[in-house]
Amino acid sequence: MSTIFLGSPQFSYTPSLSSPKNPFKLPISIMATCIHSSRTKSPPKNKPQINNNVYNYVKYCQPNFPNLITSNPFSQKSLKVEEEEGEENLWVKMKDEAKSDIDQEPILSSYYVSSILAHESMERALANHLAMKLSSSNLTNTTLYDLFIGVLTDDQDLIKSVKADLLAVKERDPACISYVRCFLNFKGFLACQAHRIANKLWLNGRKILALLIQNRVSEVFAVDIHPGAKIGKGILLDHATGVVVGETAVIGNDVSILHNVTLGGTGKMCGDRHPKIGDGVLIGAGTCVLGNVRIGDGAKIGAGSVVLKEVPARTTAVGNPARLLGGKENPKRLDKIPSLTMDHTSHISEWSDYVI
Amino acid sequence: MSTIFLGSPQFSYTPSLSSPKNPFKLPISIMATCIHSSRTKSPPKNKPQINNNVYNYVKYCQPNFPNLITSNPFSQKSLKVEEEEGEENLWVKMKDEAKSDIDQEPILSSYYVSSILAHESMERALANHLAMKLSSSNLTNTTLYDLFIGVLTDDQDLIKSVKADLLAVKERDPACISYVRCFLNFKGFLACQAHRIANKLWLNGRKILALLIQNRVSEVFAVDIHPGAKIGKGILLDHATGVVVGETAVIGNDVSILHNVTLGGTGKMCGDRHPKIGDGVLIGAGTCVLGNVRIGDGAKIGAGSVVLKEVPARTTAVGNPARLLGGKENPKRLDKIPSLTMDHTSHISEWSDYVI
Amino acid sequence: MSTIFLGSPQFSYTPSLSSPKNPFKLPISIMATCIHSSRTKSPPKNKPQINNNVYNYVKYCQPNFPNLITSNPFSQKSLKVEEEEGEENLWVKMKDEAKSDIDQEPILSSYYVSSILAHESMERALANHLAMKLSSSNLTNTTLYDLFIGVLTDDQDLIKSVKADLLAVKERDPACISYVRCFLNFKGFLACQAHRIANKLWLNGRKILALLIQNRVSEVFAVDIHPGAKIGKGILLDHATGVVVGETAVIGNDVSILHNVTLGGTGKMCGDRHPKIGDGVLIGAGTCVLGNVRIGDGAKIGAGSVVLKEVPARTTAVGNPARLLGGKENPKRLDKIPSLTMDHTSHISEWSDYVI
Repeated sequence: MSTIFLGSPQFSYTPSLSSPKNPFKLPISIMATCIHSSRTKSPPKNKPQINNNVYNYVKYCQPNFPNLITSNPFSQKSLKVEEEEGEENLWVKMKDEAKSDIDQEPILSSYYVSSILAHESMERALANHLAMKLSSSNLTNTTLYDLFIGVLTDDQDLIKSVKADLLAVKERDPACISYVRCFLNFKGFLACQAHRIANKLWLNGRKILALLIQNRVSEVFAVDIHPGAKIGKGILLDHATGVVVGETAVIGNDVSILHNVTLGGTGKMCGDRHPKIGDGVLIGAGTCVLGNVRIGDGAKIGAGSVVLKEVPARTTAVGNPARLLGGKENPKRLDKIPSLTMDHTSHISEWSDYVI
Repeated sequence: MSTIFLGSPQFSYTPSLSSPKNPFKLPISIMATCIHSSRTKSPPKNKPQINNNVYNYVKYCQPNFPNLITSNPFSQKSLKVEEEEGEENLWVKMKDEAKSDIDQEPILSSYYVSSILAHESMERALANHLAMKLSSSNLTNTTLYDLFIGVLTDDQDLIKSVKADLLAVKERDPACISYVRCFLNFKGFLACQAHRIANKLWLNGRKILALLIQNRVSEVFAVDIHPGAKIGKGILLDHATGVVVGETAVIGNDVSILHNVTLGGTGKMCGDRHPKIGDGVLIGAGTCVLGNVRIGDGAKIGAGSVVLKEVPARTTAVGNPARLLGGKENPKRLDKIPSLTMDHTSHISEWSDYVI
Repeated sequence: MSTIFLGSPQFSYTPSLSSPKNPFKLPISIMATCIHSSRTKSPPKNKPQINNNVYNYVKYCQPNFPNLITSNPFSQKSLKVEEEEGEENLWVKMKDEAKSDIDQEPILSSYYVSSILAHESMERALANHLAMKLSSSNLTNTTLYDLFIGVLTDDQDLIKSVKADLLAVKERDPACISYVRCFLNFKGFLACQAHRIANKLWLNGRKILALLIQNRVSEVFAVDIHPGAKIGKGILLDHATGVVVGETAVIGNDVSILHNVTLGGTGKMCGDRHPKIGDGVLIGAGTCVLGNVRIGDGAKIGAGSVVLKEVPARTTAVGNPARLLGGKENPKRLDKIPSLTMDHTSHISEWSDYVI
């Protein structure tokens, strides 16, 4: 077993772990093995001691990707309690970070108080922060706050996704030095949360409001996600400028998407016309994926690629038009989860026509 | 005749229709044929009953593209009356849509009233809406409103272009559910209209103001169009983030341009140094067209392409560097107008080196 | 000598001028020769008569690129006095331009007075202008002004870099008609100056503030430069939307970077993981350079390229993946400085597989 868990995110090939029926049902003893056998990357010392079992499980030991995109793959009851504790702690941790930041930069006191410390929950702080960012002369922040807090209170799953995204950004982006910084300032994170709210409104038939939020997000953050798009948990939109996601796109869990990525449609007919992105996928900067094509779980798409056809699970597609590393017939399989390693370039040596 | 008008936008090869002297002079009887023989796509039921003859004519029957880019190709007197009626109706329709939206979302009442219903004409609503969006602490919205309404009142052709763009967006973008939504929220549409005003100021010698508007549009909408650029009617800038259009670029009529498209220059000498885009062209997301090169009428440029040389009319160029489908000597000719079909991907099967 | 100075920016191969020990030590007599022997491009008549010797020297006669990136390559004492005079004159010139603009457009009086004429120095005007642009409801412009003016006053080198950037934009961008227009409106210029301030704060241990500025700049200008990145003088960020520069990136002097360019990392480990861009480099629109790779002095990267490996000095890399013009073994060498010529397309005829 120990050779499997090498301390960086990777696929497990142990058949018993990848049962198609319930790929995530692991005995606790195996989970413990996963956590303690991680060698090369131990959890940072200054990381909050929250949610560690679940967290490391996802990071190091995720046994396989489900073949279907689900909105809630980590749903075992045995994990649920720890998850909730972790989520509770996350808000406490963020308030501590805010206080520490104020100590370092007193000129930011009023900013941190009004944005974080004045609020009794992450839901309220998020509703307030997004309302401040997205309000305009025609659309007051109180109107938006009431709208946002209503949605966030109504659906407890939504704030779980918010927290999973916070954990994902902090874990995967070396430039992210604290949760509170991501929460306050990362426009990819904020655009994703505004989308989650817009998506709920869309599903509840409040399309006009949902589309209005989409457009404000596009103006304020330069991120254009149609409210109809389905997006999983644990999402990193890194840098985020120029991201476009179409109405019938689906994005799985634990996906990392860089800036200027398009998940676009083709033609002007309505209906299912946008890409389906599996779990654990990494999509490099400036890439276009067009049409109702599937990017399999754990696939990696290199920067600047143009993808117009299906990409199988755990393979790497690069170039314009995109081709599979190793060739169409026998593509090379990734043994790590690319969205978690954020490794954009290790395929170079195998990209045969790269001749510089 | 009926085999020519297949109900989706296409080129006509009937020689009598494509006389180089007056390509748009069609007898009314033929126009009627065009409209009624459209088979596969009938006009949506809930579409305003305005301007239909002209509209369908453009959509289904445009017999050919003029060889020269003109700012007003549909200039027959017989069409003019209907056009004006359609335009009048468009504003009435938009106010109806606004009222319907208020019924659905009363919290948006003041937004819709101040943006749409309080104004007696589309010109005034547009001047107000752009002024609100583009104003800053140093540049009040009243200053901008006075400036914009002056330009819009002075040149009646300008508002015709605005209306042609509204029709274009609604027709080509499946995500556009009403005219009023496009008018209020689509940053590509708003950036294009701000450019139309800036271009008038530029041509009238008010360069400082024109450039100031360009820069505010770049900040607010992330769309950077030099006020010197000439842009025709019926333009769709879809998503629009990152679009850059240089000073001496020319864009024809009925063109669809996706986000992150650059029509850029090369070198630092002044003079004519930017691309010339023909009528009916479709340019996919993330494409760069650089230098004073011509993209022929009805050409299609695939997403993520880099185009540095001329692209003949009705051909498809893809890749980096861009190549013609079918080869340079005998490129495959498109039989439909790509800017209207918005078909970005049907060339896949013919792109010989696409091997996934 | 005269054959060397052909009036457009170029490399000199004269050994005596390119001594590795002090490549910039030129006798004044040679500088004068440089200026007067420029043939094909004479300085525009309406250009301010400031700083001409230094300016033309840099433009026409830069003998070679230093092998190492330095923050201050033009450091000879003989040039310093003239430089300072030029810088002093630049602010005077900008105030004259502002007055002239007010004469032409009286409705902009209050804008120009509050932004330019009310300030006693460029430092104060810049601190004010950036504070107005980057302030938000939570972060007042007075807080930001105090912060910015403190940094600008504390480090006199910083304002020298600001001025070098102003000269660079005016010289290289044909669309830039005056210094004051660049100063007030070019978001690439403003984002770069905000970065210079954020970088000082970062180096002084004020990381929270530095990161906050980075994120505001990303929201307001759609330019995302990590405050840790090192950027030289004489930088042009043209159009600028979508530019992303990572924490450990280094950009040399006299570099021109178009919009949607990424200097990105790979992997999620900390440490030196971003590109190193030499002096005089030109990077075309939409290009991704990923990983800790070096782009040599005077290299040119074509638009839409994906660069994952080192590019030698004075060579041209194009395509996805990028390849060297002339081949890896014997790449063609540029004889002009690409960041100054801004020539994006003259490599076409030599790009062998470009077959349109």
